[in-house]
Amino acid sequence: MAKITKQSENFSKWYTDVILDADLADYGPVKGTMVVKPYGFSLWTNIRNSLNQMIIDSGHENAYFPLFIPKSFLEKEAKHVEGFAKECAVVTHSKLISEDGSLTVDPDSRLEEEIIVRPTSETIIWHMFKKWITSYRDLPLKVNQWANVVRWEMRTRLFLRTSEFLWQEGHTAHATKEEAMEETLLIVDIYRKLFEEHLAIPTMIGRKSNLERFAGADETFSIETMMRDKKALQAGTSHYLGTNFGSAFDVKFQSKDNKELPVYATSWGVSTRMVGALIMVHGDDKGLKIPPKIAPTQVVIIPINPKNQKQEEFTSFVDRVNQGLVGQNVRTFIDDNNESPGFKFNKWELKGVPIRIEIGLKEFENMEVTVCRRDNSEKQQVPIDKIDEIPIILQNIQDSLFNDAKTFMDDNTCTVNTFADFTETLSNDNQFIKAYWDGTDDTELQIKEKTKATIRCILEDNEDSSNKCIFSGQTAKHLVVFAKAY
Amino acid sequence: MAKITKQSENFSKWYTDVILDADLADYGPVKGTMVVKPYGFSLWTNIRNSLNQMIIDSGHENAYFPLFIPKSFLEKEAKHVEGFAKECAVVTHSKLISEDGSLTVDPDSRLEEEIIVRPTSETIIWHMFKKWITSYRDLPLKVNQWANVVRWEMRTRLFLRTSEFLWQEGHTAHATKEEAMEETLLIVDIYRKLFEEHLAIPTMIGRKSNLERFAGADETFSIETMMRDKKALQAGTSHYLGTNFGSAFDVKFQSKDNKELPVYATSWGVSTRMVGALIMVHGDDKGLKIPPKIAPTQVVIIPINPKNQKQEEFTSFVDRVNQGLVGQNVRTFIDDNNESPGFKFNKWELKGVPIRIEIGLKEFENMEVTVCRRDNSEKQQVPIDKIDEIPIILQNIQDSLFNDAKTFMDDNTCTVNTFADFTETLSNDNQFIKAYWDGTDDTELQIKEKTKATIRCILEDNEDSSNKCIFSGQTAKHLVVFAKAY
Repeated sequence: MAKITKQSENFSKWYTDVILDADLADYGPVKGTMVVKPYGFSLWTNIRNSLNQMIIDSGHENAYFPLFIPKSFLEKEAKHVEGFAKECAVVTHSKLISEDGSLTVDPDSRLEEEIIVRPTSETIIWHMFKKWITSYRDLPLKVNQWANVVRWEMRTRLFLRTSEFLWQEGHTAHATKEEAMEETLLIVDIYRKLFEEHLAIPTMIGRKSNLERFAGADETFSIETMMRDKKALQAGTSHYLGTNFGSAFDVKFQSKDNKELPVYATSWGVSTRMVGALIMVHGDDKGLKIPPKIAPTQVVIIPINPKNQKQEEFTSFVDRVNQGLVGQNVRTFIDDNNESPGFKFNKWELKGVPIRIEIGLKEFENMEVTVCRRDNSEKQQVPIDKIDEIPIILQNIQDSLFNDAKTFMDDNTCTVNTFADFTETLSNDNQFIKAYWDGTDDTELQIKEKTKATIRCILEDNEDSSNKCIFSGQTAKHLVVFAKAY
Repeated sequence: MAKITKQSENFSKWYTDVILDADLADYGPVKGTMVVKPYGFSLWTNIRNSLNQMIIDSGHENAYFPLFIPKSFLEKEAKHVEGFAKECAVVTHSKLISEDGSLTVDPDSRLEEEIIVRPTSETIIWHMFKKWITSYRDLPLKVNQWANVVRWEMRTRLFLRTSEFLWQEGHTAHATKEEAMEETLLIVDIYRKLFEEHLAIPTMIGRKSNLERFAGADETFSIETMMRDKKALQAGTSHYLGTNFGSAFDVKFQSKDNKELPVYATSWGVSTRMVGALIMVHGDDKGLKIPPKIAPTQVVIIPINPKNQKQEEFTSFVDRVNQGLVGQNVRTFIDDNNESPGFKFNKWELKGVPIRIEIGLKEFENMEVTVCRRDNSEKQQVPIDKIDEIPIILQNIQDSLFNDAKTFMDDNTCTVNTFADFTETLSNDNQFIKAYWDGTDDTELQIKEKTKATIRCILEDNEDSSNKCIFSGQTAKHLVVFAKAY
């Protein structure tokens, strides 16, 4: 196992090293694509299952909509098309000709209308909603799908930005604006919960500015998270789409009193990008730190008995420890292959397993195990009859990872009142910077150009006319948070 | 709710009616694509979860490989390319130009190498295996993915044959031929279990003939099932791929004694097509019959109290029944909206829910419920303190659906010794016909041309030279089963 780059040396290289060396993912052959390897996929599955349960419990139903979208659908919502036209995989033919072992595209198989590989599914879903929604009885309609989507990105990075990625996308239709807005915010809260309680990632949440809003949304709410390099990562979004897609696809409903009324929409999604956030929020120079709730393996057990002394009793002791944990629904793995203990310690630290249990002859004699926490490297002895305390330690690790990340974000968030302070702060280090903004695109663009920092989200509307925009000096419209972002 | 076509009138229309009216699926906008609606997706999810558990328990790991395959990959395995070249979605461009609200493909975004949307993933997976396999320590490598694939079919039907479908595809790499063959057969057995024990579908299993084999396989084992119209549906396949893909992608491994050896492969898959099989094996003129094990709703509870008499006590009785079932992990749904009981009975029969529980005032007074089985329409009273017998009835339904289907398949399977008998049998009705075959492509093709029946699978090799091919009269090579097929 090659040593991974230190975070402090090269954060970006550290990130890639961790992914490749911990066996989370690998590069696919087509530029910008990614193979999610079993360990990474198991992590993704745990995150997905946590979120899926919350989505179902809040009254949504899973469904599946086609990958292929007719080009004409994208044309129907003006802003939506602008947002996605430049990064579309376009299917133009349906056949290859094979001659002497080499393949060419069959020109006769050219499609009448080109097909787009979905970059997101609003258009195809509202095309179907048009068929399914006629009366108030059909509303609300709340569907979700777990799917792959494609956005032809030029600069890609594993998990953070790949041409194809996995996500869930929820799409709902409502009879009123209020109900749609309530749904938008309900989802924000579900995402917050997912990040805070399952991924142990603190969040900063607010509306997006005009320039950063989803193409086709009236409002976008964003879940912003702080990485260990103090840059921001947008980790999830929930959109209030107003009647934009309803109008574009001519969806109306008959109300109880027989009026024909417009339909309000939301859409929302989180993706495999969350795995990127997880790595960069918790990881250290040894590798990953995976929060116990979503860890593929929560406890790795490493028996150390190189001379196979008292082998039978020793093995049965190891099994007893393992069974004790499995009986409490702890996800365990016994690493009994013949690498050296040191090699195994490094490997499982790299993979971010929350607890390592070492069992040597001393532990065996004393009827105890040595428990080593990945989060803070603390070691403690736990007697075999106290093995039911391991779930408590796991919960402590979960909480501690969250608290550390929260402290880190708080410590690296500041408020500035002048643009001089703003630029000085950023020249020292990355930060989340709270500041007043006049609400104009122009100011946002100029600040971005000068500092590379963007408005991550709007935290509050400003009511006090004495608060001025740090850049223009005009009366502030919003308190926002700026940061350099992924 | 429109009345569905009778099976006997038009089986094919009955099939489509059931799917659309029971809300399993709908047509997507691009020809041949399908939207899986929430009820259908929930059914698919239950099937998927059953199988996924078996796949994991037998030592496979889930992963995810990219949707996009470089065209050149398909060229590498000669038979594989022939099998898939004519039904490929080809991505040729990566950008659209938006002008005045209309979209055109940006000619400057033409890709250097065209990309194929995966019809199956052997090529991309073996490209990755080349990176991952170097030593005997890396073997066996057993991965599975749940994914969407695209095959540009001309004649499509919901669930049975759609341009895009959902499936799992397993791909394994082994050090020896024996181990790979063992894996191929292990999977056949897992599929058999899935069909028989979860979907309540009896199977006929054997090897495929040369002509029907998977493009790139040395052997294909097929799970054949009989629909209610006595036609065959190939419901799953497991392939022994020999060293075909290992050679094509130059994958070798270093053995313990330092030899460079070839790697043996398997691949295997089942798809949303299973839902089609389920519909056509169990369904009747009233609609679906879903086996309890995989039913989204196992018991629908219909309270009948139109005048709301003793409303509070009545409702609490209904809740008590429901809680009693939920406590035994029965998936229930209380249908208390204000449609008529008759309408509800029809709706849930159409949707194939295994048990309907009716609770009227009489039931309430007698502290009992009326239990109606979807499979045989039998009704019985069950006292509230015997509500724990419902899971037993569900198991009976599961068994009974399997037994009925098994009897049906057996009753419609015959053995013939002459081609005259063969054609006469088929001229009366569809059948599974067991017969001896000389093993030549030519005989198979001629029989297909004359009767439309194909060899579904090879049941046995023939050792007895007195057994002759029904068509050519030559010494038989195999005992096979013929049928008209989907």
